[in-house]
Amino acid sequence: RVPRTIEWNPIMAEKAGYKHFMLKEIHEQSQAIIDTFRSAVDLNRGEIRLDDLNLDGKGVAGIRKICLIACGTSYHACMVGKYMIENMCRIPVEVDLGSEFRYRGPLLGQDTLLVVISQSGETADTRAALQEGLEKGAVCRAIVNVVGSSLVRMAGGVIYTHAGPEIGVASTKAFTAQLVALYLFGLYFAVASGRLDRQELSAYIQELIELPRKVSDILARSEELSGLARRFMNCRDFLYLGRGILYPIALEGALKLKEISYIHAEGYAAGEMKHGPIALIDEQMPVVVLMQKGPLFEKMLSNVQEVKARGGQVIALVEGKADERIGPPENRFLIPESSPWLAPVLFTVPLQLLAYQIAVLRGTDVDQPRNLAKSVTVE
Amino acid sequence: RVPRTIEWNPIMAEKAGYKHFMLKEIHEQSQAIIDTFRSAVDLNRGEIRLDDLNLDGKGVAGIRKICLIACGTSYHACMVGKYMIENMCRIPVEVDLGSEFRYRGPLLGQDTLLVVISQSGETADTRAALQEGLEKGAVCRAIVNVVGSSLVRMAGGVIYTHAGPEIGVASTKAFTAQLVALYLFGLYFAVASGRLDRQELSAYIQELIELPRKVSDILARSEELSGLARRFMNCRDFLYLGRGILYPIALEGALKLKEISYIHAEGYAAGEMKHGPIALIDEQMPVVVLMQKGPLFEKMLSNVQEVKARGGQVIALVEGKADERIGPPENRFLIPESSPWLAPVLFTVPLQLLAYQIAVLRGTDVDQPRNLAKSVTVE
Repeated sequence: RVPRTIEWNPIMAEKAGYKHFMLKEIHEQSQAIIDTFRSAVDLNRGEIRLDDLNLDGKGVAGIRKICLIACGTSYHACMVGKYMIENMCRIPVEVDLGSEFRYRGPLLGQDTLLVVISQSGETADTRAALQEGLEKGAVCRAIVNVVGSSLVRMAGGVIYTHAGPEIGVASTKAFTAQLVALYLFGLYFAVASGRLDRQELSAYIQELIELPRKVSDILARSEELSGLARRFMNCRDFLYLGRGILYPIALEGALKLKEISYIHAEGYAAGEMKHGPIALIDEQMPVVVLMQKGPLFEKMLSNVQEVKARGGQVIALVEGKADERIGPPENRFLIPESSPWLAPVLFTVPLQLLAYQIAVLRGTDVDQPRNLAKSVTVE
Repeated sequence: RVPRTIEWNPIMAEKAGYKHFMLKEIHEQSQAIIDTFRSAVDLNRGEIRLDDLNLDGKGVAGIRKICLIACGTSYHACMVGKYMIENMCRIPVEVDLGSEFRYRGPLLGQDTLLVVISQSGETADTRAALQEGLEKGAVCRAIVNVVGSSLVRMAGGVIYTHAGPEIGVASTKAFTAQLVALYLFGLYFAVASGRLDRQELSAYIQELIELPRKVSDILARSEELSGLARRFMNCRDFLYLGRGILYPIALEGALKLKEISYIHAEGYAAGEMKHGPIALIDEQMPVVVLMQKGPLFEKMLSNVQEVKARGGQVIALVEGKADERIGPPENRFLIPESSPWLAPVLFTVPLQLLAYQIAVLRGTDVDQPRNLAKSVTVE
């Protein structure tokens, strides 16, 4: 494939007036999303082009199963990708952790498309999973942020997330750019396999084009989260609940808080709450609920009522308009409406901001949290 | 299929001298395992018979994919089942939560075998998943403890776990019996699909026959855990780490502690530790590590060293013999060696005992933990 040079100059890697790299990178997300889809969306022809992916219609036709593999935050992107791709393409998608994949004797063949995801392109366990895929003859591709990294060299093709350099150890803009890359991949694969016509594609593209503005709207409302951050900064535990495509975002929100504030935050599929974690809930345990509009809204609402009935405090991220049944306005943050497949991006942003604001109030080292490395390059 | 009557008399549902139902049920596990495999293992003919399953060789031949669906503890059994069945049968196995399965538009057809697992046979979300499978024409079966329950009536066949009545809200003997049922199912399916010959089967059956005695050995050593329970009873947080087939057991161990002691315990795939949870580790956060012999042992050992390097306290469950590199003897509990597919049963038992002992020291209501119901019969 054609070599590609991305110019990152030293200025781009400075804090540009922000207190931390992480905050700067949270605020760069609208741009990172635009940069990730810009070269892939051909507005004149109404097409998705993923030239570096190196997978044409014939290649797509030979695929019967897709495996998405990654570690940490990128693994949460894989989980979202499963929802997107299975629904757009009606093809089975399996997700696995890099560190687990090799050791379970995965069933792979020439009809398997293995897609590994990593910001750095150097994550050791993910690299080992890719190696396993190559040895077993799978079609191997990568979604990576760093040009020329190991995964790019090993895989037969790539989708770049054009997020620019990410310095904060806790991944932010690379994650939302991965979600956009997976959305592009799902659309591309769906068109190539005849699952999506031009008109449907056009509507999906329109949703994507409107996404950066919605992200900017949320960023402009950062201050709305500061009251929540102050009220809950001294809690020792948090629970994050989501359903469907927002279940992985509950995991990601909890991971952000865990990484930078050292609060023990845990994400759960909301339907599992009654099977165990509800025993933990009391007035000391705030519960962050992610409420997408649509068929799952009422189910989440019943989770909210269960939490309240046990004296728990609810922090609700609500898509669309406020619903009085959720709780008082100071415990709510409204999320702009979007396509169900892009809602994960919009719900992620306030969770990043909340984790960041709590960590700053607690005085932790936000950009270099204890015990963590930016890229885990050993197994 | 032939109706079957199981006789549970009132005496069996009393505590029989144990302080709690949960402790009684933990101690009934050797017998529950024997009762679960006894009717299925034909020692004279060296065969596995699962008559109630209603799935003959022709039925097996038509299956291209297996979905295992459950909630809570039974979901952890599904995760173990994936490892067992994919390795024994070389057929793709997907696992999903009952509450998530329906809403992701699952790909099901006549070549899909959907197996739902539930102690009560009444779990609402699991039942709804089974309904979805029936409507989409999948081959539907159930692994259930209660005769005549909803799942049994709906599914086209069943494997009963003969664990007897389980009164404690936190599931113990029903879970290990589910693991045995899945082992039996894997062997049956592997033989029926020509993946396993008589000699291999015989070795697997031998391992199963030796299992109850190993469980009894662990139960007889309960007292070895009391020092650990006393030392760590006041901790507010625990981390449980496992790899491969023991990753779900890390989740299950954490769930037990969470349910009955209200300590915020979280399970993680050990390879993910460096991607986030390691930020939480300090001298206040004990880390329970599950160390299976074999290829993953050295990887777990490096996790142990990372935890110790951050001042964390390690509680190690170690299969086989002690390894001085793990830590002092008072922080270790030895697990008898077994087949890799049955190790999950043996690692589960001391985790149940540890959770039980800690909860008793903390004075919680072990058999009726706050906020929890035995069967979650609403969605």
